[in-house]
Amino acid sequence: MVGSSSLELITPLSQRFFLSSPLTPFKSLAFPSKKRPLFSAPARIRSELSFSVGTHLIPHPAKVDKGGEDAFFVSGYNGGVLAVADGVSGWAEKNVDPALFSQELMANASGLVTDEEVDYNPQILLRKAHAATSSMGSATVIIAMLEKNGTLKIASVGDCGLRVLRNGQVIFSTQPQEHYFDCPYQLSSEIIGQTYRDAMVCSLELIEGDTIVMGSDGLFDNVFDQEIVSIIYRIDDVTPAAKALADLASSHSTDTDFDSPYIIEARSRGFDVPLWKKILGKKLTGGKPDDITVIVGRVVSLPNDSRA
Amino acid sequence: MVGSSSLELITPLSQRFFLSSPLTPFKSLAFPSKKRPLFSAPARIRSELSFSVGTHLIPHPAKVDKGGEDAFFVSGYNGGVLAVADGVSGWAEKNVDPALFSQELMANASGLVTDEEVDYNPQILLRKAHAATSSMGSATVIIAMLEKNGTLKIASVGDCGLRVLRNGQVIFSTQPQEHYFDCPYQLSSEIIGQTYRDAMVCSLELIEGDTIVMGSDGLFDNVFDQEIVSIIYRIDDVTPAAKALADLASSHSTDTDFDSPYIIEARSRGFDVPLWKKILGKKLTGGKPDDITVIVGRVVSLPNDSRA
Repeated sequence: MVGSSSLELITPLSQRFFLSSPLTPFKSLAFPSKKRPLFSAPARIRSELSFSVGTHLIPHPAKVDKGGEDAFFVSGYNGGVLAVADGVSGWAEKNVDPALFSQELMANASGLVTDEEVDYNPQILLRKAHAATSSMGSATVIIAMLEKNGTLKIASVGDCGLRVLRNGQVIFSTQPQEHYFDCPYQLSSEIIGQTYRDAMVCSLELIEGDTIVMGSDGLFDNVFDQEIVSIIYRIDDVTPAAKALADLASSHSTDTDFDSPYIIEARSRGFDVPLWKKILGKKLTGGKPDDITVIVGRVVSLPNDSRA
Repeated sequence: MVGSSSLELITPLSQRFFLSSPLTPFKSLAFPSKKRPLFSAPARIRSELSFSVGTHLIPHPAKVDKGGEDAFFVSGYNGGVLAVADGVSGWAEKNVDPALFSQELMANASGLVTDEEVDYNPQILLRKAHAATSSMGSATVIIAMLEKNGTLKIASVGDCGLRVLRNGQVIFSTQPQEHYFDCPYQLSSEIIGQTYRDAMVCSLELIEGDTIVMGSDGLFDNVFDQEIVSIIYRIDDVTPAAKALADLASSHSTDTDFDSPYIIEARSRGFDVPLWKKILGKKLTGGKPDDITVIVGRVVSLPNDSRA
């Protein structure tokens, strides 16, 4: 995999580097310590923040006609509300269209973002949107709400995901919730599903220039975080960035030789090709064909004269 | 790697399971949907939460005499405060003891947890503890503060880490921040380092029974999340659990054949063994000898009659 041009580890593995050139002249460390003026920086006038958003959805190759079973919405309310729901495909075996639940859930959530009782809490939004949804089915779902002061609040049930990118790296990542491999936590029309109480809920402070990448598992099962970072920093505009991420996920998803995040996880759980294929030297590889939803939100500061 | 006893993928990879037996009888889905009584559940009387904490530190094999360069503290203030700092070893080349900065930083932070200005905000605690530290050196650092209502607030600079475990899985994970491979973000005595402003800051809601596992990179570079989950659910008591995690990290760290998280990351960044070893069929493997600090905190509810 790594060619002859690869780097060699020339320092002992246990040796950690400290910050040196080009970010700082190494020799400066030989001078007496000068404490940074921690508190003398001019007070920063905090702008109001919001998202600049691009989205892209590519349905599962076998579900192109009906548009797939993912659903999402983007709202400009407050600093911005982003949400993705992924209908659980197993319902098709029961002659239930898996798209209905996710679509209705997103429609309900979208209509409730300004609800007083929701009060800008994504977990309460999940509760109320779920309660209002009458379709049969189930879905994984993630909702992220940005307040204008930069606080991003997240509630997630299942394996939709969110990454926050800052300074060329992923500084925050959600973790999928599942009952067992490929059976995620899910809001359901049935009593056996999860509720808003099972949501992973967290919040973090965003700053201008941060980028969030949200999506269904069709994105994160097929694209590595490092590829997401690479695309986000190569493509400045959010809409082409969302399309490029969805295109890459789609391309990997149907590549039977690709060592995808999904298949690496499957192998680590003990899944494998049948014995006769193993004897032929084959291993489990490939992407995961799926609906792919990508939302890219860049944090921008609002020109705002009316700020309190 | 996977023996003949491994599972085989008997369903198409693109097929997601929905929740079925043993968690629920699959056939129940054939009956008419019964909406769960979302709001009729009895109001839960919320107890005050705090941590039951176990810790364990194993110094780098070459630094046993002086105790290594990690430092940590645990405070019972409010719901509990946990902190780890990892002195950056590169300072030894400048004849500076890398342990001094991390130790002083932790001592200062520990003394400031009740500070009015800190007001239970770990980022402000970082700011004030850093400003009060006069030793030369630098350190990565993570602070987690639990409020009695269950809100866990985290501030982290660099590659110390934290995992939250619930229902047998990692539901939350911090991401390391770095300038380049093995050069983490760090609070420093020098002006070229990072400040509290560079911290990854987030908060999430914990519930009784959750477990948090915090540590220096000596833990997370040598132990996979799945191994952490396995130990936490096998060993009920927090102190032996922390020791077991540190022992496993220590054992992996000196195992030159182990495919550690650290070495997998190194290979993915293009590091490799020298060409002559490659020709002999060798690949880069091994753990990462390092100071290893582990803090395990289990969320328990306090018997409390004086609650407002």
